[in-house]
Amino acid sequence: MDQYKVTFLPYDKAVEVRDGESLIRAALQGGIHINASCGGEGLCGKCRVLVKQGNLLGGISERLGSEDVDKGYRLACLSKVKEDVTIRIPVESAIDRSVFDTRIVSRRTASIQCPDFERLKEQGLFFPPVEKRYLELQPPDTDNHIPDVTRLIEYLKREHDEHRLELAVPVIRDLPSVLREQGFKVTVTMLRSVRDDGQTRIINIQPGDTTAEHFAIAVDLGTTTVYAQLLDLVNGISLAEAGDFNGQISYGEDVISRIVYAEKGTGLQRLQQVVVETINLVIGILLRESGVDRGQVSTVVMAGNTTMTQLLLALDPRHLRRSPYVPVSTLYPPVHSTTIGIDLDDHAVTLLYPAVSSYVGGDIVAGVMGTGMYRDEELTLFLDIGTNAEIVIGNKDWLACTACSAGPAFEGGGIEFGMRAAKGAIEDVSLDPVSLEPMLLTIGDVRPKGICGSGLITIAAIMFEMGVINNRGKFNRDLGTSRIREHNGIWEYVLAWRDETQIDRDIVLTETDIDNLIRAKGAVYSGCMTLLEEVGLSMDVIERIILAGGFGSYIDLDKAMTIGLLPEIDPDRVTFIGNGSLIGARMISLTNRMRKEVLEVTGRMTNFELSETPSYMDHYIAAMFLPHTEIEKFPMVKQKRESWRQVISASRN
Amino acid sequence: MDQYKVTFLPYDKAVEVRDGESLIRAALQGGIHINASCGGEGLCGKCRVLVKQGNLLGGISERLGSEDVDKGYRLACLSKVKEDVTIRIPVESAIDRSVFDTRIVSRRTASIQCPDFERLKEQGLFFPPVEKRYLELQPPDTDNHIPDVTRLIEYLKREHDEHRLELAVPVIRDLPSVLREQGFKVTVTMLRSVRDDGQTRIINIQPGDTTAEHFAIAVDLGTTTVYAQLLDLVNGISLAEAGDFNGQISYGEDVISRIVYAEKGTGLQRLQQVVVETINLVIGILLRESGVDRGQVSTVVMAGNTTMTQLLLALDPRHLRRSPYVPVSTLYPPVHSTTIGIDLDDHAVTLLYPAVSSYVGGDIVAGVMGTGMYRDEELTLFLDIGTNAEIVIGNKDWLACTACSAGPAFEGGGIEFGMRAAKGAIEDVSLDPVSLEPMLLTIGDVRPKGICGSGLITIAAIMFEMGVINNRGKFNRDLGTSRIREHNGIWEYVLAWRDETQIDRDIVLTETDIDNLIRAKGAVYSGCMTLLEEVGLSMDVIERIILAGGFGSYIDLDKAMTIGLLPEIDPDRVTFIGNGSLIGARMISLTNRMRKEVLEVTGRMTNFELSETPSYMDHYIAAMFLPHTEIEKFPMVKQKRESWRQVISASRN
Repeated sequence: MDQYKVTFLPYDKAVEVRDGESLIRAALQGGIHINASCGGEGLCGKCRVLVKQGNLLGGISERLGSEDVDKGYRLACLSKVKEDVTIRIPVESAIDRSVFDTRIVSRRTASIQCPDFERLKEQGLFFPPVEKRYLELQPPDTDNHIPDVTRLIEYLKREHDEHRLELAVPVIRDLPSVLREQGFKVTVTMLRSVRDDGQTRIINIQPGDTTAEHFAIAVDLGTTTVYAQLLDLVNGISLAEAGDFNGQISYGEDVISRIVYAEKGTGLQRLQQVVVETINLVIGILLRESGVDRGQVSTVVMAGNTTMTQLLLALDPRHLRRSPYVPVSTLYPPVHSTTIGIDLDDHAVTLLYPAVSSYVGGDIVAGVMGTGMYRDEELTLFLDIGTNAEIVIGNKDWLACTACSAGPAFEGGGIEFGMRAAKGAIEDVSLDPVSLEPMLLTIGDVRPKGICGSGLITIAAIMFEMGVINNRGKFNRDLGTSRIREHNGIWEYVLAWRDETQIDRDIVLTETDIDNLIRAKGAVYSGCMTLLEEVGLSMDVIERIILAGGFGSYIDLDKAMTIGLLPEIDPDRVTFIGNGSLIGARMISLTNRMRKEVLEVTGRMTNFELSETPSYMDHYIAAMFLPHTEIEKFPMVKQKRESWRQVISASRN
Repeated sequence: MDQYKVTFLPYDKAVEVRDGESLIRAALQGGIHINASCGGEGLCGKCRVLVKQGNLLGGISERLGSEDVDKGYRLACLSKVKEDVTIRIPVESAIDRSVFDTRIVSRRTASIQCPDFERLKEQGLFFPPVEKRYLELQPPDTDNHIPDVTRLIEYLKREHDEHRLELAVPVIRDLPSVLREQGFKVTVTMLRSVRDDGQTRIINIQPGDTTAEHFAIAVDLGTTTVYAQLLDLVNGISLAEAGDFNGQISYGEDVISRIVYAEKGTGLQRLQQVVVETINLVIGILLRESGVDRGQVSTVVMAGNTTMTQLLLALDPRHLRRSPYVPVSTLYPPVHSTTIGIDLDDHAVTLLYPAVSSYVGGDIVAGVMGTGMYRDEELTLFLDIGTNAEIVIGNKDWLACTACSAGPAFEGGGIEFGMRAAKGAIEDVSLDPVSLEPMLLTIGDVRPKGICGSGLITIAAIMFEMGVINNRGKFNRDLGTSRIREHNGIWEYVLAWRDETQIDRDIVLTETDIDNLIRAKGAVYSGCMTLLEEVGLSMDVIERIILAGGFGSYIDLDKAMTIGLLPEIDPDRVTFIGNGSLIGARMISLTNRMRKEVLEVTGRMTNFELSETPSYMDHYIAAMFLPHTEIEKFPMVKQKRESWRQVISASRN
């Protein structure tokens, strides 16, 4: 895709953007503030910019007089970048430019870390747990009339060095006719054991040579969504990807409400059926899109959290939500896919990622596998942030993990105008340091409806950096802007005025909201602290951070460090694993060696229960500040506060 | 049961009989001939005897004048022995007594060899393949909240030294509630692997201690009948035994006609269902009779021939009857009983005896296991005689086996008045050497309807011994008795005259019948010869004979040797294994070590196909004489012929 350079004056800051990117997003990406509060609909008319060189697509609105248009003014939110341009921002605040320039910091989200599946082949690891082999057996005659099963097994022993083979009765039943269909030329499908000394199970026998067609489906079995990839087992390539909302959502948004539902009457069976319906729907899309024959899919590999996995297998989850939080199992045997209702051929098996504990599930294990952190020297912090945050710390020598309840703030829950990351959610914000006028970016570039987790972190961080709120999240009440006000006894900041929103109300951020955010980030940070302390280490040993979960890709890393959600670390050392569950599921679809490693890694992941660790509460209380009681842990944040103080002070003098 | 002594004069021959035995059976048992041809209904009035000492119950008939009754005459067939008695037989033929006495030989059937199951315990082998263990687990608390499955497995490892355990999803599903029902006190049921390094499968978990109740069902899966025993796995005792005709009989009497039926449409499924219905019926009887709870039965162990086993598992049997006679499999994995339709608890497994080949099946392997011949020094001939005869020869060092088609003669088929061993069948016969008048014993002591296999062998043998037929089975046509006659160009002997039978026709034995018998016995004998020759041995090395199959218990051993069905051997060296399938099935219900040995023994049983052994036809042709072309192989028979010749000659002079 073409990239263009946008140069912003007077800062002389250049940003590379994709073809067609809106100018306002380009500005935000470069850390350039433009007042804008209507979410990109050209409604507020505040985001006027002057094109100095080159041309923009669009950007003309009735909010601009024709004279201004002729002069080169455009509305940034309506302008698309289609070539290299130079843009002048009308700097409304009388900020000392020399000081301000130093404050321009580009937005940095975590770069995506994607495992290189091609390397599996190079490393000789491309041996899927379910493999096909084409065999040309000698037909029986009077000199050799050993049983069909013996003929097959002895051939595999002799010609393919395959031992410890087993066949179940349904496969044996098909054998005589399949063998004779094409003169004892057949393709066998074998499921490897996860144990070195385990049995290899012959799960299917097809007439002739079908080795060119063999497929697996990797599934991220999420609480909210089910994503899946169809993998070609011949070359390891993903042929199609599809997803849908987990149908269980109708029975509760989070795992706890699902568990509650499962405890009632036939609730467990209902939830089991519903998630399988979703999986079948997604599989249907994959097969349609790829044109693959359903009968040639032999494996489904799924990674999900412990609750999702137990619900899929109809394992009663009630004890997951009751102290002492006991899962039914954390290891799951391969199951015949059809026995749990999955609409594939009878022979297809489903493999499930093992879990570590009730709240560190197969999704986290899959993520850890996907990152490769279990075989690296670097001490890595792996963080999957959602309502529950799962934390894994370690390297090739040791792995410690825990889960903590962050509450729903990161997903917009418990925030007055909070919402999920959906169309109309304020996802990014900038503030003019003097006027405190905001620049809002919404998902879908529409008028704002609310604020999602990443927007929440950013606005709170910026306000803290600029001294709009103090380290306990309380507003500075003497800033002389109508956006900061007291309402029903609670102080708040108006992000968008009523006439700029979709909801016909002012969208505000209250001190209560900020308090909830602080609790959420405090839970995560203190979880990390406690976990490190349990293994005798402290936060400064962390060499790398890997974020997982959809949320992880949107977080502005600087801002996350500002509020003390993440420890201060070079943002280049923070990566995003993408859909860790899906990557992990894909990995073991393609290589049985990884499947064995999963067991080994799961066994090494020492689980700590924060509720049983008395120091957790102390760490939590210490983390209930922005960024932390001990500001010394965040020298960069301290420095940012100071430099903003200087900028603002200089511009006021 | 009380035993009484019956002394027969003038031979001064004493016989021990059971209380209530008929006098005529007592005579036959002692080798004493009494003319009697009505089967024991007192109709012919020929079996008059004189009571010299003691009293008989009954025996009085209108056929005896009151004067004779007063003198002490009774009809032997109507008299029951209730005390010690001395009886004089009116010897109608003027036989030289001194010579004749030496010819009195008691009937000898094979003594029953029954394995001593008590010894299993003494030998420390009483470890059933499916075992229960009672466990008192520690309930979880905040210091120990490992998953339920892990808790169970680790306890079994630690406290019971159980390793390599596996659980399937249905068992895992039940685990949380079962564990908590009685405070983590549970009984687990474990299925052992047949391999030393195999996995032990936990197949059931019950709350509390149920180890006192654990049962297995051993099944003889016969072509004609299904017999089963209910075994108490706590002490190894059989609590009930029941049987019924295999419902498949409606679809064909022998395995070939069943296979033909199975090849048509849904025939295979129908036969599978029908035999399972029979099994379920028999299991129902066992449970009712013993009062055992269906849910406490964990194992069904079955032994059947290869066709029966394939039909039970719905494995297409079509190739069993077509050259080169390939079974689908000869090893069968354990199956969940409910998956093949057996009406037991979900957890119950069915174990099936492995086969050697298409015609040496699990029933024969079970018999071999039951005899223990595979671990003895003695060279043993194991014979299961029916329409098909299976032959195993060997000892602890080697085992060779084969099957041959004997034809239906031993089951009464192809014999003009042949019938199965049922009420009214002539089962035993004696002849007066001079008058050639017969003494007939029928099953149920009723007027004769026909002749069954054991009767056929006996009459043919006696006639040959007495010179009534020659070594090609042809009648001596100059014996001056109306019982030997030509009818429609075929010579025959009248066993019972029309008015003495149930069928209103003379019951005869024809030369054609004798020819069919010779073919049947020739097939078996030449099978043994060929098998021995293949391993470089000859018939005289046989140290012991073990007979299996219902037929084996009825054969008069001397007579079987006379016709050359069995080689000449001390009759004390011939034993009868009873229901070998049932005994074998019971054995591996009780000890997993035997189950492992079965695999080893099956592997050692070298199968020879007679159809591929050119010398078989030569041996067969040589065996088409009574007892054999080479009479030297049967010195005792030669001697019997000679001594009868002397008796008869002496009495005629």
